[in-house]
Amino acid sequence: MAGDRLEPIGLIHSGLASPDQAPRQGREAGLTAQIEIFPDWIPGLEGLEPGRWLWIIYHFHRAGGPKLKVHPRGDPSRPLTGVFNTRAPVRPNHLALSLVRLEAREGGRLTVRGLEALEGTPVIDIKPYIPRLDRPGEDEA
Amino acid sequence: MAGDRLEPIGLIHSGLASPDQAPRQGREAGLTAQIEIFPDWIPGLEGLEPGRWLWIIYHFHRAGGPKLKVHPRGDPSRPLTGVFNTRAPVRPNHLALSLVRLEAREGGRLTVRGLEALEGTPVIDIKPYIPRLDRPGEDEA
Repeated sequence: MAGDRLEPIGLIHSGLASPDQAPRQGREAGLTAQIEIFPDWIPGLEGLEPGRWLWIIYHFHRAGGPKLKVHPRGDPSRPLTGVFNTRAPVRPNHLALSLVRLEAREGGRLTVRGLEALEGTPVIDIKPYIPRLDRPGEDEA
Repeated sequence: MAGDRLEPIGLIHSGLASPDQAPRQGREAGLTAQIEIFPDWIPGLEGLEPGRWLWIIYHFHRAGGPKLKVHPRGDPSRPLTGVFNTRAPVRPNHLALSLVRLEAREGGRLTVRGLEALEGTPVIDIKPYIPRLDRPGEDEA
């Protein structure tokens, strides 16, 4: 129910110690990171094979805020807009969403490409990318 | 930080009173629903105009579990697989992710197409769909 506490299912190991080191979007930089899934949840990974695309929901655990208005991509030359019109970390619930490619899996350790996150970031969920659900309709766009 | 409580930013009004009435994926059924954003967060919607595609993160607030293994789409004829290989509600943190098209906005009330959720479902976040981030790489897929 609402009011539930977020329970991490694992941690991201990226080697990025501070936001200054992190590119603004890992997808664009092609970064590779490791995700360590906690032992209790490893059986839930069954069926995830290398080459699959996955949504990672994780927690901007060091973000401030939340704020209602932000400059897109943190660029003060761009006009303020609503936080829900951006992917900024300073949002209610501090949830991040990234599409990554699964490169390898050994037990509970996933190697993924396209993830920007600080070392030790808590992972909240993993979902498979499903084209029929996750693409704008071609007849509708 | 991890351990934070989920704070709803609004509620979904779908008229669906029970899971029996809900199609398994709203995108496939083309359902229209209303999202009521709570007053404090309405300024955060600035810039969201009809025709935009949005990610809605919401809370499967009446789901049981979590479970480690599930039958895909709840179909017992399909073999069990890891919950993270599915979009099933019975997952840790009970977070749902749906891509919707914004049809209209009046103040804090959004009309969206493509959302399956029970009446009164808590909304946790709204993010813009950004093609360069949210599509598998064409050279990588």
